[in-house]
Amino acid sequence: MEYSGFFSEDTFSFFRSPVREIFKKVDLNEIYSFAGGYPHASTFPLEDIKALSAAVIDKYGAKAFQYGATQGVPELRAAVSARYGVPVERVQITSSSQQGIDVCTRILVDPGDVILTSNPSYLGALQSFRSYRAELVGVQHDSDIAQWERKWRTAIEECLATGKKVKFLYMIPDFQNPSGETLDLEERKLLVSLAEEYDFLIVEDSPYRELRYEGEPVQTIYSLCPERVLHLGSFSKILAPGFRLGWIIGAPELLDRIYVCKQSLDLCPPIMDQYIAAEFMSSGMLDRNLAKSIDLYRTKRDLLLSLLEKYMPEGVSWTHPEGGLFLFLTLPEGFDTVKLYDRALAAGVAYVAGAFFCTDGSGLNTMRMNFSFLASERMEEGVRILAGLL
Amino acid sequence: MEYSGFFSEDTFSFFRSPVREIFKKVDLNEIYSFAGGYPHASTFPLEDIKALSAAVIDKYGAKAFQYGATQGVPELRAAVSARYGVPVERVQITSSSQQGIDVCTRILVDPGDVILTSNPSYLGALQSFRSYRAELVGVQHDSDIAQWERKWRTAIEECLATGKKVKFLYMIPDFQNPSGETLDLEERKLLVSLAEEYDFLIVEDSPYRELRYEGEPVQTIYSLCPERVLHLGSFSKILAPGFRLGWIIGAPELLDRIYVCKQSLDLCPPIMDQYIAAEFMSSGMLDRNLAKSIDLYRTKRDLLLSLLEKYMPEGVSWTHPEGGLFLFLTLPEGFDTVKLYDRALAAGVAYVAGAFFCTDGSGLNTMRMNFSFLASERMEEGVRILAGLL
Repeated sequence: MEYSGFFSEDTFSFFRSPVREIFKKVDLNEIYSFAGGYPHASTFPLEDIKALSAAVIDKYGAKAFQYGATQGVPELRAAVSARYGVPVERVQITSSSQQGIDVCTRILVDPGDVILTSNPSYLGALQSFRSYRAELVGVQHDSDIAQWERKWRTAIEECLATGKKVKFLYMIPDFQNPSGETLDLEERKLLVSLAEEYDFLIVEDSPYRELRYEGEPVQTIYSLCPERVLHLGSFSKILAPGFRLGWIIGAPELLDRIYVCKQSLDLCPPIMDQYIAAEFMSSGMLDRNLAKSIDLYRTKRDLLLSLLEKYMPEGVSWTHPEGGLFLFLTLPEGFDTVKLYDRALAAGVAYVAGAFFCTDGSGLNTMRMNFSFLASERMEEGVRILAGLL
Repeated sequence: MEYSGFFSEDTFSFFRSPVREIFKKVDLNEIYSFAGGYPHASTFPLEDIKALSAAVIDKYGAKAFQYGATQGVPELRAAVSARYGVPVERVQITSSSQQGIDVCTRILVDPGDVILTSNPSYLGALQSFRSYRAELVGVQHDSDIAQWERKWRTAIEECLATGKKVKFLYMIPDFQNPSGETLDLEERKLLVSLAEEYDFLIVEDSPYRELRYEGEPVQTIYSLCPERVLHLGSFSKILAPGFRLGWIIGAPELLDRIYVCKQSLDLCPPIMDQYIAAEFMSSGMLDRNLAKSIDLYRTKRDLLLSLLEKYMPEGVSWTHPEGGLFLFLTLPEGFDTVKLYDRALAAGVAYVAGAFFCTDGSGLNTMRMNFSFLASERMEEGVRILAGLL
């Protein structure tokens, strides 16, 4: 029997990359892990959730367990609408923000269509895009905005010259995964003007936006152009990943297509979980919990930065994120963090090789380091081991 | 801006059929509804779930809210494995059994490939298949098995003659949605022998199997040929739809592909919900609750059958399901239940037109009636109104 379908062999082989396989083989609690994008366990509001579970069952009864609206329960849509200042009819609840990426790609992209993105970009999004046989075009950031604009224009015009359709630009503008970098307002405006000029959409993926440890928030890309941007949010970093809940904010015309597509995927998001998330968000619990998470993560980021300073050899550089969960290391040319990975794991330390985030096989001398998951008291030993390998 | 993607316009227009639109417009609690596949609210074990939510948070702590394995948490896989007598490595947990349908189609089907199914068949599955641009070939049941076999062979050979690939046969063998019919053992064996002869897979969708009100269970198709059958199960009818949890049982080679695909869809199913479902299934609560649901639904089925007998005019016939949630009405030739629908809704009664379950535009004089949702004391008035319209 031959198994082949739209979810193609190419996709499979990419998904089978070592970065995914380790999550099958290794218990991240037993090593010094800078891999993954796991929140720290202490940030999960267990007592709040326990109280809310009981309260939601008392309040909603059977309604918390029946089929529900594909768009999400009204209470959660209203909570997202109120928190982010968008009309409720522009809010679709998703069963994880990964589903948000999947569903946007599914309604917008045909095989061979182009998706533009930063290079590097979020691995899980690249995997989803590849599974739809999209062509990925990645553009490296440039601190000179005129130079960055030239790179985007060159990339776009090369696509158009060969008759390809550019469907959307995918971007994580706040504390990017993997780089930790944040786009400033001028850079965001440039992306919007390119989207308008060349008539494509922007998918703004924003799971870390609320985890800011310093500096001032920059306007969302969505707020600059609400008709042309699909904004993806997530409860994974402000409540807990185990709920698998996220949201999409966008124009009603686009949400209507997403609604229809989501019906065929899973009919609706889990109901009790949505009521819990709604109460958590609208009652003030979220803000109290978030303040604690921000304090914890700021400390952990500062600790990792100081440890890198202390242990890393000459020639290694890294980003200084203002928020989020990650920073990005660049080693001297010639290093190969994919090859180094098995030795690192044998020595008890894990990271994610930067090449997996790149659209074009570059980034061999880079790696992503997560600072949210590993206990602070274990971080020094982890960095020491890693530095010893370099 | 033009929006088009793999999830095509054809699919959209089908999804926009009135059967889906009514769930946006009408509160099913305010009419006499024989539409939908909603369990009765009284079957949801609210007190059990409340107790289990607290117990699961105490037992698992932060683990109940962190990211989890894509295959599902080990405890839930073990519970499904033990209940259905299959090895745990053959169990994948899904975020709803609708996701099971979607993911099987996604890994197996390319545009233009053929999916065989009964005619009529489950609407949500047909929608998913169409969204992947599969060609649907439906075969009507025939009580003469030799005649039924001839129909399948003719359908298959017509596909093969035109160079098309038959990827799988989709079947709900127990208390089918919409017909309520159950395949006997000989019929199941025939499907397996056809799958072996023509080298395709069988997707056995079995959400109602445990809701049997009379007669003896028939072996699953999976048990007849574990290497060639993907068996889909659901918690929606044995716990509650609001959890959006189901499972796939199948060969490791196929589950491995499903695992990879599911990563790109939503990374993993919701964690606390899985722990609750695991405790519910393995503690005996499920069996106690199921016994009560079966008693309730048997009474409701018998009531609906007796009311149809009492009120339906000459020339109307219906199936006598041994379990599940539905029966299927056939009106005299010339009736059009799609056209009748607006008048029915205006009179306060809802059903689902049979044509929506058909692969080929047939079934205009049929309708699906659900007997699980509507309160027993309101059923007589609903049937009286419906009969009055015919």
